[in-house]
Amino acid sequence: MDTGTTAFMLCCIIGLTLMIPGLALFYGGMVSVKSSTNMMMMTFGSAALVGVLWVLFGFSMAFGTSYGGFVGSITEFAGMKDLLASQTTISGLQVSLFALFQALFAAITVALVSGAAADRMKFSAWMVFAGFWAVLVYFPVAHWVFAVNGTVTPDATGGWIANNLKAIDFAGGTAVHINAGAAALAVAIVLGKSASWGQLRRPHNVPLTLLGAGLLWAGWYAFNGGSALAAGNSAAIVMVTTFVATCAATLAWLAVEKFKDGHVTGVGAAAGAITGLVAITPACGAVTPVGAIILGVVAGAICPYAVGLKSKFGYDDSLDVVGVHLVGGVIGTLLIGFLASDSMPNKVNGLFYGGSFDQLWRQAVAAGAVLVYSFVVAYVIAIAIKKTMGIRVAPEDEESGIDAVLHRDAAYELSPA
Amino acid sequence: MDTGTTAFMLCCIIGLTLMIPGLALFYGGMVSVKSSTNMMMMTFGSAALVGVLWVLFGFSMAFGTSYGGFVGSITEFAGMKDLLASQTTISGLQVSLFALFQALFAAITVALVSGAAADRMKFSAWMVFAGFWAVLVYFPVAHWVFAVNGTVTPDATGGWIANNLKAIDFAGGTAVHINAGAAALAVAIVLGKSASWGQLRRPHNVPLTLLGAGLLWAGWYAFNGGSALAAGNSAAIVMVTTFVATCAATLAWLAVEKFKDGHVTGVGAAAGAITGLVAITPACGAVTPVGAIILGVVAGAICPYAVGLKSKFGYDDSLDVVGVHLVGGVIGTLLIGFLASDSMPNKVNGLFYGGSFDQLWRQAVAAGAVLVYSFVVAYVIAIAIKKTMGIRVAPEDEESGIDAVLHRDAAYELSPA
Amino acid sequence: MDTGTTAFMLCCIIGLTLMIPGLALFYGGMVSVKSSTNMMMMTFGSAALVGVLWVLFGFSMAFGTSYGGFVGSITEFAGMKDLLASQTTISGLQVSLFALFQALFAAITVALVSGAAADRMKFSAWMVFAGFWAVLVYFPVAHWVFAVNGTVTPDATGGWIANNLKAIDFAGGTAVHINAGAAALAVAIVLGKSASWGQLRRPHNVPLTLLGAGLLWAGWYAFNGGSALAAGNSAAIVMVTTFVATCAATLAWLAVEKFKDGHVTGVGAAAGAITGLVAITPACGAVTPVGAIILGVVAGAICPYAVGLKSKFGYDDSLDVVGVHLVGGVIGTLLIGFLASDSMPNKVNGLFYGGSFDQLWRQAVAAGAVLVYSFVVAYVIAIAIKKTMGIRVAPEDEESGIDAVLHRDAAYELSPA
Repeated sequence: MDTGTTAFMLCCIIGLTLMIPGLALFYGGMVSVKSSTNMMMMTFGSAALVGVLWVLFGFSMAFGTSYGGFVGSITEFAGMKDLLASQTTISGLQVSLFALFQALFAAITVALVSGAAADRMKFSAWMVFAGFWAVLVYFPVAHWVFAVNGTVTPDATGGWIANNLKAIDFAGGTAVHINAGAAALAVAIVLGKSASWGQLRRPHNVPLTLLGAGLLWAGWYAFNGGSALAAGNSAAIVMVTTFVATCAATLAWLAVEKFKDGHVTGVGAAAGAITGLVAITPACGAVTPVGAIILGVVAGAICPYAVGLKSKFGYDDSLDVVGVHLVGGVIGTLLIGFLASDSMPNKVNGLFYGGSFDQLWRQAVAAGAVLVYSFVVAYVIAIAIKKTMGIRVAPEDEESGIDAVLHRDAAYELSPA
Repeated sequence: MDTGTTAFMLCCIIGLTLMIPGLALFYGGMVSVKSSTNMMMMTFGSAALVGVLWVLFGFSMAFGTSYGGFVGSITEFAGMKDLLASQTTISGLQVSLFALFQALFAAITVALVSGAAADRMKFSAWMVFAGFWAVLVYFPVAHWVFAVNGTVTPDATGGWIANNLKAIDFAGGTAVHINAGAAALAVAIVLGKSASWGQLRRPHNVPLTLLGAGLLWAGWYAFNGGSALAAGNSAAIVMVTTFVATCAATLAWLAVEKFKDGHVTGVGAAAGAITGLVAITPACGAVTPVGAIILGVVAGAICPYAVGLKSKFGYDDSLDVVGVHLVGGVIGTLLIGFLASDSMPNKVNGLFYGGSFDQLWRQAVAAGAVLVYSFVVAYVIAIAIKKTMGIRVAPEDEESGIDAVLHRDAAYELSPA
Repeated sequence: MDTGTTAFMLCCIIGLTLMIPGLALFYGGMVSVKSSTNMMMMTFGSAALVGVLWVLFGFSMAFGTSYGGFVGSITEFAGMKDLLASQTTISGLQVSLFALFQALFAAITVALVSGAAADRMKFSAWMVFAGFWAVLVYFPVAHWVFAVNGTVTPDATGGWIANNLKAIDFAGGTAVHINAGAAALAVAIVLGKSASWGQLRRPHNVPLTLLGAGLLWAGWYAFNGGSALAAGNSAAIVMVTTFVATCAATLAWLAVEKFKDGHVTGVGAAAGAITGLVAITPACGAVTPVGAIILGVVAGAICPYAVGLKSKFGYDDSLDVVGVHLVGGVIGTLLIGFLASDSMPNKVNGLFYGGSFDQLWRQAVAAGAVLVYSFVVAYVIAIAIKKTMGIRVAPEDEESGIDAVLHRDAAYELSPA
């Protein structure tokens, strides 16, 4: 047991938890004032549900002994009591702390999906979706990507992407961002367009969105740096690339806004930062600082166009989970094949650094597999919910506002009686 | 000196400090827009005052050599200069850092009480109350509960609950939550009902309340985890139970809301999370992860009913410090007697795990002693303030709004001139 | 490599990043609702720009081998790739992590200046100013103050203030606060008074300002404590003095408000806390806890008067960067000469502790040099911008509101359509 590594990972839990209000505000500030309580509750509600499921059997499904690289044993670590009582460590890191670190990943990933559901999804339907998607998609995909052979128990086999395909995904470009983005696309399609589709949607509270982005940025260091699982040089490098990619993507997004629309916006600054964070997530251990700047610029320049795809193809991904997380995640995952430098922790050279196509196709397969699996299963879950309990509020309730109807709760009461 | 433990505790200070704005927003979002600046200032003001008192003599009263288990020497560490210059450690933790960690406990506990005083307490009266209650109640009770024999100096004797009664209170179920909740009850009774009693009170800003809950959640890991005083397995376990109890209580509170009222609310999600955090605080080192889920569900299911007690008994505990902190603290403190498992750090078995009644009565005595002492002394302080300087603003000022009258400061100015 | 120190500094990055939204909200809440998006974007925009510049060549300018104590080699660590790949440590701290820690200092310092530019500065002009001021002022001044001989490479010489003058500045009283404050004064003068000069300016959102102050407070522990560059006793002591000076300054500011105006305000509580943090920044390793209380009281009592200087001298430093950061920084820097105690980490005695005038004049020279250099160069940059691209929006745009005109972005949209 290394007390330095333990200290780092304990504090990462604080950082990751900041991402819960961070995401709730980032999303909650962008929606209409009629939906903001609902939007924030989707994050808190699903995080709470996934947290309980994770302890009961999710960690076991993700990190238990593998069934063919696809999913771990559901019973091996069920309830986590023996896990906590054991003194097992992963290179000096207690396994109980690793399990908690990964719990926050699960909670945050599921909550990301909710950005596609703004204004119109029944809260009960969201909670049911969150539970099923966590169990059927996130827990297995986390196993694919994060369960390195021998992680929790020495002889245990892990997931196929980590161990067989050997794609590089330092902190979840595939398992978190492509995964959530693909599910968001499915949810948006099944839900259908909200009543405000085609109208100008103004964020109801830009300061909250910028604050949310700031909290996410702070917490993301725990997400990416903590994925090094040790207080060492890798974590430090990962934080440097995470920092500078975020800065670069923010500048790029603002530059594109200026070029496209003639002015820069607060939501653009927030979205640019998040895009940089998303894109660097898989690549943070693979690229140099200058590589990270390039990656940030590319993502920050493409994604402001990618968010326009929804208008073109007609899916109402309200808060651009597809444009930012899916597209940003794909960009980061693929750019590893070009920009990786073997002087960095992942020790692989991309095409621009004299590497072969070998890494690039592995990256593409990982991205594609997660994208397709997540989309298909999310679509099936959402359709099943739609056919049974119903997935969407009544049109008149959407008109009145989902906060007022579902929660009897206006976000603000600013006029003193 | 262990650098890992030092690193962890240094970072816990950052986490604990997040609880100051966290609490200010959690409370400040729930009150009327006419009182929100005042509400937030009560947290900041009392935290500042208690911080100075702590350095001057509070730490000494809480952790100095004991007078009969009731209170420590007021002069032993006064001013803390020699303490900082010394190289004394507590199992590898510098005593200066321990003193700062405990300073934040004091500041936060006193601020918790302010939730009962919304809308109607003079700010000067609040500051006077905060100072006296810190000195007469918090510093001694912290001594009772947290001053383990030999903590700061090897031969020093500590407090009676920690060393004689041997109740389990990992991070302050009694010293923090029952203590603050009982004082809040006294303050509410002395203040009397506010003008809006009996009317529907709507939170003026739900996003701020949810954000506040999120910041509190993040900081609470430092509160509970840091109470292990070491970057080790205990801290990791404590964070797991803290996480999952919070998740479970959130779900339970929402479920009760749905059952009782037919809909779930944003404030409910926030209150549920805080309830889980309160209830797990004493128990976080005693229960298994599944035990923590049960504890969270019990607290999250009872407290939404407990907040209704004020209507029944007619005390205007505006923001439910009694319903959440007092009742939640009692639940967590007593459930240790049932749910404790000796495979966890506290190494005690509760009734459900084959233990005896022995631990349960110790828990009950500790809870009762803190409750009664805090309530009585808080009541006396509040009455004394009422009889001398006055405790409540004039009825017409309450009507106009305490922010406008006391602070000449509207919380918002949203209409451009 | 010490894993404890590494853990601490990794987590300090999380803490420092919280200061970005913290500052954005602290400033953004204080301005008019017509300017709040712009205000927050100045922080995010300049932080992003400075982050990229820092990685490209800023770290090298600040910490590369010195040209005569004035500035470091611009090419030595350009791009930071070799720096990250190296295993160089600074007393157990990886140099890559040190570089990132200092990157946040640069980003935050530049953003501090924006408080003088509220309501009327073109965003493009701000970004150009931020870039030039970072390169021409911050990077060299950081070299003067923070580049101790032999820090990054054993034989490298560093800056003149740190090594020749030997002034004490633990965490940036001169390099950060006097520096930013002096630049803010220059910017305010060049910009001229805003349209609302002379009118009562009400903060548009007090809760955001208090929240911002709270986030800054939390992050400041990373700022000051992290400047110890090790998880040890110095960091712990520094955090104690940082904590209690902040508490004391908050109380002092509120007391002066009460005395001067007859009431205390939310913005006063926030400004008091920030004033204490500013003033303790240079002195946090030099004064005892009681010395920190005195220092906090002095700064917290003088600065509420110092913010009135702008009315007297007619410079429109909208958010009091001069009154709080320049004056507070000077107070903290000079008081070291009086209040330092050799039992603290800096091991110097001030006049009140039996020391000589020796330290005081060193402090005064450092403060004066940074003040003059920053003011002059900032003035020249601002004038150059004014003469070329223009620095200020048109009067009618200022009237309409800078958010609406520059960003097409109202901060709030609270009336459901």
